[in-house]
Amino acid sequence: MTADGKVVSRIERPTEAERGPHVVLASLLELIRQLLASYPSTGAVGVACAGQIHPATGTVVYAPNLGWRDVPLASHLQRGLGLRLTVENDVRAAAWGEFAFGAGAGTQSLVAVYVGTGVGSGAVLDGALWRGASNGAGEVGHTQVVWEGLDCPCGRRGCLEQYVSGSGFQRRLRLALAGGVATRLAPETAGDPARLTATMVKAAADAGDAFAREVWEDAERFLTLAVANYVTLLNPEALVLGGGVIEAVPRLFEAVAAGVPRLTTVLARGLRIERAQLGDWSGVVGVAALASGKAGDR
Amino acid sequence: MTADGKVVSRIERPTEAERGPHVVLASLLELIRQLLASYPSTGAVGVACAGQIHPATGTVVYAPNLGWRDVPLASHLQRGLGLRLTVENDVRAAAWGEFAFGAGAGTQSLVAVYVGTGVGSGAVLDGALWRGASNGAGEVGHTQVVWEGLDCPCGRRGCLEQYVSGSGFQRRLRLALAGGVATRLAPETAGDPARLTATMVKAAADAGDAFAREVWEDAERFLTLAVANYVTLLNPEALVLGGGVIEAVPRLFEAVAAGVPRLTTVLARGLRIERAQLGDWSGVVGVAALASGKAGDR
Repeated sequence: MTADGKVVSRIERPTEAERGPHVVLASLLELIRQLLASYPSTGAVGVACAGQIHPATGTVVYAPNLGWRDVPLASHLQRGLGLRLTVENDVRAAAWGEFAFGAGAGTQSLVAVYVGTGVGSGAVLDGALWRGASNGAGEVGHTQVVWEGLDCPCGRRGCLEQYVSGSGFQRRLRLALAGGVATRLAPETAGDPARLTATMVKAAADAGDAFAREVWEDAERFLTLAVANYVTLLNPEALVLGGGVIEAVPRLFEAVAAGVPRLTTVLARGLRIERAQLGDWSGVVGVAALASGKAGDR
Repeated sequence: MTADGKVVSRIERPTEAERGPHVVLASLLELIRQLLASYPSTGAVGVACAGQIHPATGTVVYAPNLGWRDVPLASHLQRGLGLRLTVENDVRAAAWGEFAFGAGAGTQSLVAVYVGTGVGSGAVLDGALWRGASNGAGEVGHTQVVWEGLDCPCGRRGCLEQYVSGSGFQRRLRLALAGGVATRLAPETAGDPARLTATMVKAAADAGDAFAREVWEDAERFLTLAVANYVTLLNPEALVLGGGVIEAVPRLFEAVAAGVPRLTTVLARGLRIERAQLGDWSGVVGVAALASGKAGDR
């Protein structure tokens, strides 16, 4: 990527996490070298990675999707490449991408909320990523929207993620099927909740399926509530919504965009509410921007 | 106050807001001159004021308790004194006071939540007050803790302030009395909800009064929930709780201090949870620290 955010080359390859961190690191190194061969004047490398990244060392402290614990991603690649290396959590990197070159360009602060398999977020305040005192800021998916609500695998109850995410929808269907609830989503998923998508929930709700309607109404209302509370606390200049579920069902963005101004304080009503613009590549663009030294660190 | 936070002299006088802004400003000027006469080398003056303060001009944009709109507090006093003048919202100033010289001393970030007549907060992130893009950050009293919950005078429903604040308690008693609910708080307030205090609610709950018990349980659970969500989003180093209701009923601090670690993400568990240390003077100490140039501005 150039310093002004223009992506000049792309390569994609499956992660193959099941083969272990060493294979993934070797594959990553090979990909980066391939790109560098065409762009030898490249000054820095950025890697966006799901999971908890140590803000100083770039070590992947914990990445459940990859099955990684304490993998020294940054130092390994740095040794192999001899270039400045930046590793950032993918959701925070995506927020930074939207801030630097996407829906939040021109603002000084934004909150970006991503709804996909889970729900995550990143906040840019006064032109810098806010990572939190122990690198844990932005866990909007685990803010609690219902007192003693649905059980969450995190061990608590009523977390937003159980009401509006791919994994949350699947979990609710699993419980419903176990409880004998009648829903067209049973035959549509051939009884396998892992096949359920947000699009299917919305379509079934529109077709009058009572279970799907309840699930979808909860999704709209609690995403709106949680995001509104986020805005009320932080009063950012822009709110950016992205992720697979937001992209698959346009109505969800519309519901939140209409609902948040009604649920936030008068002071926050100047808020810009935008769809994420960088799509799947927002994390990549964001971490490239961070790596190139476009601020982001304090 | 000295630059290291030692208060060297105090004067108190009733605001007499009912006499209008001109009288209040004249009275304030007189008080400050009285203090300056004893400390002629004073370099700056700070004023903490309830309401919405313009961050650049120090004008009181709106202060419902005083009945003020667009009162040029900073410029008026500056003309009268010829000293550098800083005006800050009292709750934000209090948060800064706790950060600079109180319960948050030594940290780089904190969230301070004050529960009194209303519920307000201030956040210090990476050593600076976060005021929000339109000066509206921190309205935790108007985060919504119950979907379609109790009506709030702000026009929305389920706001935290209706469940845990002096005004919220009084409002609930007013509704209960109008609805014919039997409670010992009726005779104890002589039928006048404006006489109700948090201490009375807690004592009646402990004595088995069903209405008071419900009100108090809601207060504990929803303050804990809202504060936990705040921590989950911002991951501050310290959480500081203060204000009249927190000071009057020690149990409320204990309930929140015990509950927040259970309701926040693993990452936030290093959180320090502290009582506010500066009491009624936290706003004064905080704005003096801001005025003396102890950071706080970006």
